[in-house]
Amino acid sequence: MTRKPHIADRMADIQPFYVMDLLARARELEAQGKDIIHMEIGEPDFETPQPIIDAGIQSLSDGHTHYTPALGLYELRKAISNFYKQAYNADVAPERIVVTPGASGALQLAVSVLINPGESMLMADPGYPCNRHFVRLVEGKAQAIPVSADTDYQLTAEHITQYWNHKTVAALVASPSNPTGTIVNEMDLKAIINAVKDRDGHLIVDEIYHGLIYEGKTTSALTLSDDVFVVNSFSKYFGMTGWRVGWLVAPEPYIKEVDKLAQNIFLAASTPAQYAALAAFQPEAIAILEQRRQEFQQRRDYLLPALREMGFDIPVTPQGAFYLYAGCSQFTDDSFQFVMDILEKAGVAITPGKDFGINQPEKYVRFAYTTDIDKLKEGVGRLRNFLNLG
Amino acid sequence: MTRKPHIADRMADIQPFYVMDLLARARELEAQGKDIIHMEIGEPDFETPQPIIDAGIQSLSDGHTHYTPALGLYELRKAISNFYKQAYNADVAPERIVVTPGASGALQLAVSVLINPGESMLMADPGYPCNRHFVRLVEGKAQAIPVSADTDYQLTAEHITQYWNHKTVAALVASPSNPTGTIVNEMDLKAIINAVKDRDGHLIVDEIYHGLIYEGKTTSALTLSDDVFVVNSFSKYFGMTGWRVGWLVAPEPYIKEVDKLAQNIFLAASTPAQYAALAAFQPEAIAILEQRRQEFQQRRDYLLPALREMGFDIPVTPQGAFYLYAGCSQFTDDSFQFVMDILEKAGVAITPGKDFGINQPEKYVRFAYTTDIDKLKEGVGRLRNFLNLG
Repeated sequence: MTRKPHIADRMADIQPFYVMDLLARARELEAQGKDIIHMEIGEPDFETPQPIIDAGIQSLSDGHTHYTPALGLYELRKAISNFYKQAYNADVAPERIVVTPGASGALQLAVSVLINPGESMLMADPGYPCNRHFVRLVEGKAQAIPVSADTDYQLTAEHITQYWNHKTVAALVASPSNPTGTIVNEMDLKAIINAVKDRDGHLIVDEIYHGLIYEGKTTSALTLSDDVFVVNSFSKYFGMTGWRVGWLVAPEPYIKEVDKLAQNIFLAASTPAQYAALAAFQPEAIAILEQRRQEFQQRRDYLLPALREMGFDIPVTPQGAFYLYAGCSQFTDDSFQFVMDILEKAGVAITPGKDFGINQPEKYVRFAYTTDIDKLKEGVGRLRNFLNLG
Repeated sequence: MTRKPHIADRMADIQPFYVMDLLARARELEAQGKDIIHMEIGEPDFETPQPIIDAGIQSLSDGHTHYTPALGLYELRKAISNFYKQAYNADVAPERIVVTPGASGALQLAVSVLINPGESMLMADPGYPCNRHFVRLVEGKAQAIPVSADTDYQLTAEHITQYWNHKTVAALVASPSNPTGTIVNEMDLKAIINAVKDRDGHLIVDEIYHGLIYEGKTTSALTLSDDVFVVNSFSKYFGMTGWRVGWLVAPEPYIKEVDKLAQNIFLAASTPAQYAALAAFQPEAIAILEQRRQEFQQRRDYLLPALREMGFDIPVTPQGAFYLYAGCSQFTDDSFQFVMDILEKAGVAITPGKDFGINQPEKYVRFAYTTDIDKLKEGVGRLRNFLNLG
């Protein structure tokens, strides 16, 4: 085949995860016998808690291998509704909860139902790159707003006011954020909700890292408004990454549309994953997850000062997720080359800023504390050596 | 919330599965104690074969709960490559095989990588409705070609010649087809491949129902060309519907694009499902599946003449899948009302033609023989009564 492939224009704007190339190189080095400390991976090192695995095994033994409804197992939607009541004292009817193939599925549904070609959605840069790609996929426009430590790397009501234009129909906020781990507090979230509403706009709140919060209380946007889209997932706090099961809470008038779209593009989320997720809210699972949350906190509390001491610039203490977004201008003006050098020479894998947008990515790297504290210490030691810090 | 929701225009063109309303009504009737014969469901009644379930359980016991690469477990891609060698004597490198969340994921990837806004894709009407919705989702145009029994309800090279225009960039063929169960034979498939190639176009071949063929041999498009997209799935022949795992074979120059898009919109297919699917090609599973194939054939061989005798018009004997697409003009000029009446008055659920397009859907219904032969016989008896055929 020698003819030129016909590749849709959108693909030029949809970037790969650059860290994948780095990961591939890390695997090569490992195959050569090198030891690599992985601090690049946005996935907890823990396996799924045993009670959840057991529930998955039980459901398979029971022969639950058929499709569920497109909106998900009603039992699971009820369990998620209960969870909102218990964890947030929020009333969220099961009918507004849509079980999806991971948060990815939820984000795709929300964006595809909301955005026309040429319409735009505000979001923070740095941010999770797939968000802008979901918008691009349906020929919308992601308005990436450069954010800084001044606003905890988060969108604010002022950003909404400043950047909203006649093509803007929605905004997306992620709290805690990937890659920065910072959160939007309740007061600021209220202000954002109002600013969006004042413009007759729509708000998507990514709460994927909820539960992984190390100080203070998390407010779900659902405690403040019924007129928001909220994305969440069993992947991160609940430790079910590989199963691919998440959820979307949509305002009532959108459910019919979301159902229709889910029928057409997914059919449904994986059935064994949905049955397993039913066990995620059980006390035995929560006990394990809370213990893990404490371990993540210990890791953060070790890694954050260690990186600061080396000279990485982390002005805001991240309150959640498992990421540290670190300025590296003291060491380099090319963070991509920097992470490559660190991998080759120090055997430590971290993620380059350019995976998170175009807001000075060359000045930042992301550390994920998704590996145990001994490995983090080894990684820090290697970095100190690499940076000649003795 | 009283303001008007902002729903993207595309949603007006994306139809729900109308059969879902019928299914909901059937469930209501069942809740009232009525007995309903289900011949509407596009899902085999069989559970996943035990060896595949066992493999899923084993992988969970082994703690395989993390993400796989976006292209899928390499081991599974190799197993699928082997399958092409053994079943079709086709050489398909594992690198060209992308594991997806069901065939739905595969169709979305292929369409999204190929179609720009305003560009169009030819496909048969009647056909699987999601195909045109995947095109609509990315602002492309589905050119639905009305097909009839004259061409076994399939696209032909002549259709390609007749309907291809300056906006057409691709065509989609499904063999065996949902809803008609008809196949494209090797000669016709070759002619289609050539006709598309002559127009510098691209071909997607949906082989989701491969394996479920009751006479003759199936030819995979991959035995005829490397320059086609082929969609397949573990759902139908392999009996893994609820797990959501399928695959896409793409021409080599598209793999990088497909990988990038899969990373962004799915992350990956469900890990337990991928491990379970590894067992689908094992002799113990195949033995069960072949026995089921024979049972499907017996069902077809019972139901087809029984429907014809009643006066349903099924001029082409379907060679595959588990569907009969039946003309019902002798009984009604409104097939939707007809299926509703049959449900209410005869307790038999079948699918209205309007779920498959706009080519005279009011004249057709679809019967799925996804229930056992005793139930099919009961359903036929009820239909005969309903139609006053004694």
